[in-house]
Amino acid sequence: MHAYVEELAKHVGQEVTVKGWLYNRRSSGKIQFLQVRDGTGIVQCILTEDAADKSRFEACEHLPQESSLVVTGVCRADKRAPGGFELTAREVSIVQVAQNYPISLQSHGIGFLMEHRHLWLRSRKQVATLRIRATVIKAIRDFFDSRGFILADSPILTPAACEGTSTLFEVGYFDDKAYLSQSGQLYAEAAAMALGKVYCFGPTFRAERSKTRRHLTEFWMVEPEVAFADLDDVMRLAEEFISFIVSTTLGRCKEELKVLERDTVRLEKVTPPFPRISYDEAIKMLTESGHDIKWGGDFGAPEETAISDRYEKPVMVHRYPMACKAFYMKTDPQDERLALCVDVIAPEGVGEIIGGSQREDRLEVLEKRIAENNLSKESLEWYLDLRRFGSVPHGGFGLGLERTVAWICGTEHIRETIPFPRMLYRIYP
Amino acid sequence: MHAYVEELAKHVGQEVTVKGWLYNRRSSGKIQFLQVRDGTGIVQCILTEDAADKSRFEACEHLPQESSLVVTGVCRADKRAPGGFELTAREVSIVQVAQNYPISLQSHGIGFLMEHRHLWLRSRKQVATLRIRATVIKAIRDFFDSRGFILADSPILTPAACEGTSTLFEVGYFDDKAYLSQSGQLYAEAAAMALGKVYCFGPTFRAERSKTRRHLTEFWMVEPEVAFADLDDVMRLAEEFISFIVSTTLGRCKEELKVLERDTVRLEKVTPPFPRISYDEAIKMLTESGHDIKWGGDFGAPEETAISDRYEKPVMVHRYPMACKAFYMKTDPQDERLALCVDVIAPEGVGEIIGGSQREDRLEVLEKRIAENNLSKESLEWYLDLRRFGSVPHGGFGLGLERTVAWICGTEHIRETIPFPRMLYRIYP
Repeated sequence: MHAYVEELAKHVGQEVTVKGWLYNRRSSGKIQFLQVRDGTGIVQCILTEDAADKSRFEACEHLPQESSLVVTGVCRADKRAPGGFELTAREVSIVQVAQNYPISLQSHGIGFLMEHRHLWLRSRKQVATLRIRATVIKAIRDFFDSRGFILADSPILTPAACEGTSTLFEVGYFDDKAYLSQSGQLYAEAAAMALGKVYCFGPTFRAERSKTRRHLTEFWMVEPEVAFADLDDVMRLAEEFISFIVSTTLGRCKEELKVLERDTVRLEKVTPPFPRISYDEAIKMLTESGHDIKWGGDFGAPEETAISDRYEKPVMVHRYPMACKAFYMKTDPQDERLALCVDVIAPEGVGEIIGGSQREDRLEVLEKRIAENNLSKESLEWYLDLRRFGSVPHGGFGLGLERTVAWICGTEHIRETIPFPRMLYRIYP
Repeated sequence: MHAYVEELAKHVGQEVTVKGWLYNRRSSGKIQFLQVRDGTGIVQCILTEDAADKSRFEACEHLPQESSLVVTGVCRADKRAPGGFELTAREVSIVQVAQNYPISLQSHGIGFLMEHRHLWLRSRKQVATLRIRATVIKAIRDFFDSRGFILADSPILTPAACEGTSTLFEVGYFDDKAYLSQSGQLYAEAAAMALGKVYCFGPTFRAERSKTRRHLTEFWMVEPEVAFADLDDVMRLAEEFISFIVSTTLGRCKEELKVLERDTVRLEKVTPPFPRISYDEAIKMLTESGHDIKWGGDFGAPEETAISDRYEKPVMVHRYPMACKAFYMKTDPQDERLALCVDVIAPEGVGEIIGGSQREDRLEVLEKRIAENNLSKESLEWYLDLRRFGSVPHGGFGLGLERTVAWICGTEHIRETIPFPRMLYRIYP
């Protein structure tokens, strides 16, 4: 009977068949210890010379790493074994003898690993990271689905920019041109006017020429949008959302976080409410601590880290100057220089994981901003329609999936948080 | 207290506030009946001249469709009211008086509706369709998540074709070129070798110049991939999967299916097992019933409909000729002309909703096929690596989301099953 390694606890004392790949091996004369991974875990299979016929035993002795094999034997609990279970092998059948596997259990340079990403995925830490990624995604969807949000996917192929024209990927669209979506937000706004509370969650694209540990050209973003919500509603939603993701992942991914050697003490403190500071307060704090930043400038990685280091939890910085924010954000009625927006900055140097705002709901103000930002009014006429026909206060935010996974995993570079990262000069495999 | 229309059953006898848009209205002298939609449903609000001040009452009398408003009043159950509840309005506040709304409750031409898709979304049938879409997506993810599959997103930007080079969208990628993914499968295969059982679920792209009711240039596809699975495993997974989606949606979307006037009798019969016929049998059946098709040809819409009309449930047609299938499919060892593949054809003329197969796991056969199909071996070296390092029998399938939603909704054209459809000459809004 085929069993996955993660199910072995249910099969102690039974004979089961495990199908997988040789991860590691040691041998002591008449006994071989084969570590077999099957994607759900690693199990140690004990093969004695008596149990196997001689040629099979010898074949296993020289089996290269990542060869595929099927092992049948009785499952025993053993606390000393990695994973807690062992198989006393009665039969081993080799599916394929692998060629010499390029990735050893020793360390390799990052360029080499990226070039072999399709194989690197099999390594323990990569498996753990991808399992956490899947858990985070499920937590994200469960959060919104269970709160009455309707998933409304935004299109990828779009006629215009929504986050500045300098980072657009252009696509030949039959006899026309299109652009890869930088954000699903504008479409989510249309959907929110139809469905009340919505979210979109899909890949987004930024042709950024920057090579940093926080940037991918293709990354996933989840963007809730709520009709009749103001900035305070958006901030409350954001802190509840992030807290839910973190606590769900801590609960479900204990083993994976152990593999990654993640210290989870700080993550356990992530509960609402989060600290809130205004941009003005942040500037004051930064200049007092010697940062060279003037009122009106956006924060880079050093400023974000300096701010987040003051708090144990993610910190919500609100009301940035309009000048450094996107055209669709609503002006603060208390101070026309400011936008009703919020950035959530994660601890431990991860940086911004959420950008959100109340949206400009006045037609004439939005028209002015589109002109000021040199955006194509023609391709945004549909978006302006949302202000012509039943405009309402509304808002939402976007959370970058990979930065969030990197934060939870404690991963230095976000390239490890997506199966096949796309970066400047990196499109293969 | 703000309440969504779908929650009104919990608030009978209480005063609540509903926030939404004017959907329809009738008036009989001193009483106005305002139908207000908020994305979760429609509620009738009764406004009497006594309750409102005079100017407010008059303003409501001339309020255009889709104006936004906030109504506070006591909630009463009334079986005659659409939705089953009424609000006796104590206060109506108008958020915005809409301009003349272009989409009346009368019918419009499809070109006009598509041009106003951002507003058309607010119509009752569109809301119902999108809510069903969200339910189908949740069912898809729940199915795999609860069966130990790990979500592993495939990249959108890829260096090469995997479903033929004639339908590729090209993207300028810095100083290089890339292509929009036609299928996440090849990457899912790599992920399956790392994680055992995986699925990817994201947008895929085909630059098809065909204008049919079954084609979009951008559509979502879910693609499970299982290590150590053969064609029979793939077929069993497919029939369980489809049955789960259909029964889950029937259970959760009763109201929406009613709005769409969907006869659900045939959907209720969708349970495993599905009928299985070989391509050879299908050809025999088609030629006997007068279809002009020769052995070796692929099926088009007329053939698919003729086959599916013979069955109540979706039908699984397996083992097509290799010549009409993709390079990565495994040859049938019983008959080298055939592929170990399966198409699942939905009833009621919907056509193929699943294409799946066991994958070719032999390096040298795969190399030959890549050459025969004029694909770039260089850009598929990583894929060949999966056969060099621990190749195992494996398989999976792809299910087209929009066709599945169209089938369940009984929608004639799949353009209504995605919030913002992309088709030949259709990139706006």
